[in-house]
Amino acid sequence: MAIPKDARIDLSLEDIPKKWYNMAADIPDLKPMIHPATKEPVKEEDFKAIFCDTIVKQELSKERFIDIPEEVRTALVNLNRPSPLQRAYRLEKYLKTPAKIYFKREDLSPLGSHKGNTALAQAYYNANSGIHTLTTETGAGQWGTALAMVSNLFDIKTTVFMVKGSFIAKPLRKTIINTYGATVYASPSEYTDFGRKVLKEHPETSGSLGIAISEACEMAAKDEHTCYALGSVMNHVMLHQTVIGEEALKQFEIGEIEPDYMIACVGGGSNFAGFTFPFLREKKNGKFKDAEVITVEPKAAPTLTKGEFKYDFGDTAGMTPLMMMYSLGSEYIPPSIHAGGLRYHGMSPLVSAVFDHHDISATSYDQTDTFQAGITFARTEGIIPAPESCHALKCAIDKALECKAKNEEKTIVFNLSGHGLLDLYGYEQALDGTLPHSGQ
Amino acid sequence: MAIPKDARIDLSLEDIPKKWYNMAADIPDLKPMIHPATKEPVKEEDFKAIFCDTIVKQELSKERFIDIPEEVRTALVNLNRPSPLQRAYRLEKYLKTPAKIYFKREDLSPLGSHKGNTALAQAYYNANSGIHTLTTETGAGQWGTALAMVSNLFDIKTTVFMVKGSFIAKPLRKTIINTYGATVYASPSEYTDFGRKVLKEHPETSGSLGIAISEACEMAAKDEHTCYALGSVMNHVMLHQTVIGEEALKQFEIGEIEPDYMIACVGGGSNFAGFTFPFLREKKNGKFKDAEVITVEPKAAPTLTKGEFKYDFGDTAGMTPLMMMYSLGSEYIPPSIHAGGLRYHGMSPLVSAVFDHHDISATSYDQTDTFQAGITFARTEGIIPAPESCHALKCAIDKALECKAKNEEKTIVFNLSGHGLLDLYGYEQALDGTLPHSGQ
Repeated sequence: MAIPKDARIDLSLEDIPKKWYNMAADIPDLKPMIHPATKEPVKEEDFKAIFCDTIVKQELSKERFIDIPEEVRTALVNLNRPSPLQRAYRLEKYLKTPAKIYFKREDLSPLGSHKGNTALAQAYYNANSGIHTLTTETGAGQWGTALAMVSNLFDIKTTVFMVKGSFIAKPLRKTIINTYGATVYASPSEYTDFGRKVLKEHPETSGSLGIAISEACEMAAKDEHTCYALGSVMNHVMLHQTVIGEEALKQFEIGEIEPDYMIACVGGGSNFAGFTFPFLREKKNGKFKDAEVITVEPKAAPTLTKGEFKYDFGDTAGMTPLMMMYSLGSEYIPPSIHAGGLRYHGMSPLVSAVFDHHDISATSYDQTDTFQAGITFARTEGIIPAPESCHALKCAIDKALECKAKNEEKTIVFNLSGHGLLDLYGYEQALDGTLPHSGQ
Repeated sequence: MAIPKDARIDLSLEDIPKKWYNMAADIPDLKPMIHPATKEPVKEEDFKAIFCDTIVKQELSKERFIDIPEEVRTALVNLNRPSPLQRAYRLEKYLKTPAKIYFKREDLSPLGSHKGNTALAQAYYNANSGIHTLTTETGAGQWGTALAMVSNLFDIKTTVFMVKGSFIAKPLRKTIINTYGATVYASPSEYTDFGRKVLKEHPETSGSLGIAISEACEMAAKDEHTCYALGSVMNHVMLHQTVIGEEALKQFEIGEIEPDYMIACVGGGSNFAGFTFPFLREKKNGKFKDAEVITVEPKAAPTLTKGEFKYDFGDTAGMTPLMMMYSLGSEYIPPSIHAGGLRYHGMSPLVSAVFDHHDISATSYDQTDTFQAGITFARTEGIIPAPESCHALKCAIDKALECKAKNEEKTIVFNLSGHGLLDLYGYEQALDGTLPHSGQ
């Protein structure tokens, strides 16, 4: 038994993509963001209080392809790009399915997730614009960790406002951010007007993502050499993540792989967009005609499966521009689940538009089922997936079982957006039977 | 600025080594293990109470090369072999050194360390011999995790006796072992005669590696379908780890790399042996003539730098065969340090013999210095190293600074044996200034 050729499809350093794909170019009726005060589309100037020029340009761009600077490509090596595409032979055997299952390995980044792909681009452009500090918020901690790490690659500082509840409950994340040399404050903090105001009114609050966003934006707006960075939802973030999908296309070519299903989890939408937008472009160009592209969300935040397509705020406090997106309502606070990265009331306007056009489908799962899928994956493939990634995996397993029932040899590809080594408590609960159900 | 060709040297699946290198073939005067009762060299039969036939043969083999079964090569893909050889350009720049620094990435295994390389071979041979369960001990948890994971790849069960102190202090490791489906008991346990005896005499004990070994061996000896597996020290373990060094040789060839220094940390000796034994073979054959091969140990367990070359027990309780090795005395209990994998009183007989022949040199560091090196690495290369690996890294940095002082463009290669995401507490202490010094 020789090693099967498609056990893992690796790419060379040369294959690190040279261009990002901008989905906005292919959605002519994409609705602009609206300024809540003027009710006019948000203009470049409006964004410039908190973002550097290039990021603003990319956010509003309609160019189909945008060059990836060589400095960014070189730094992507430090995130272990290109990432392998691996075949889950042992999972297939365990499921006794005739289907082929492949997964893209974003877990191999030293950050443990795909978040670095955009963090790195944002750090580069900001550093190049003379910005000395980036501010951001983090809930579960993945995004704050990513920005803290990549800032070092471009000699820029990072200040992270971490939701106080997580700050206390997830000390490991704080240690990682500090190890990377970034500053992390429990939010609400004493370092912003808004933080002080909240603390005065609610001294015992455990904070929220909305409050942390407000603090990060306030700090960015007040200093001309400080900008804000965010890890999902906006167009430029989706753009930077498309390195995942461009690599996958090349791997499909090498492995002669014709996906019938492309599957990724969705919170704000960035790993899904990165993984599938280049594929959707090729699908529109006539390739992969019969493939189905599937988003998987938690039942706790069923934005696409139960939300409404409308203009809504990106945050709870109502401080962001209005975005045309699927939303459960900006006041909706998802129940607590381990997949913190999927706990979001809205959805990236680009992913929302693609869904509205019926180019992709949506499904949702209870976290108890997704963790069982994660345990199965650990015991077959040896990797413990992030709670978020378990959602995509669970859907891939269900499709594989459908193939078994129908005896169809289909090809299933999912994005393993991260590993779960920093989120083991959910596994502990799943193993001892105390994991709560989630959702509505 | 294009991506430098040696930023990362990847190998293909085909390059997974086809043979292990057995250093014992090249040490004619290697001293055998001695049975403590008979004072005779340990024979095949003596080992067979706790090891399967092939493992015993490999332990005593003098063959220079041993074929790696195709099933094992295929399973090595699940450990992300071949592992990349990466250049630390950003660390070099930070240090302002003319030296080139490369590191081999054992951290990319889903287990986070090199330990799986031998776990996998042991699980394969035992499963093939009709063994249904492997028993082992674990202290810090890396080895127990590795065996738990790879057992699944060959449908064999694993029972881990985890030192009670770690069992309580490191619940994450326990969760990982359980997620992989293995059984883990706090040692001393109620499941063995020896465990019950210890519990009766010392009900409040937090256990020790010696006690855990005794429990694992007792369980293996009592059931003919149960065998014992261990993660370092013995010859067959060193053998299985040589995939690291064989890959590195190929990477040196591709990258036209001529190492002046080869550096790895040592506890029992397995990551060092795996990384350097094939290199030492080639050195003996006339290549890499001027290269220095360096072991790095903690000041808390300075086996090679301060120990004595003598026959000694492998465990504290004096139950193993006597081994000719550098030892601090089998009764020596190293002070508590974060690099749990380096807290061992002895040294692999093969590594000891090579050191006795002056083919390698030895150095030691205090843990406060090694964690500072780890923080520097995280902030330059983006990877948080395991506390053990920080020792090799610290030595590599010191050599690079020597090169700077002397303006020498030497080539330094070290083995990054694992990542530190499950050992963050040491980093927290290093960052807030509370990390204790260690050692003598």
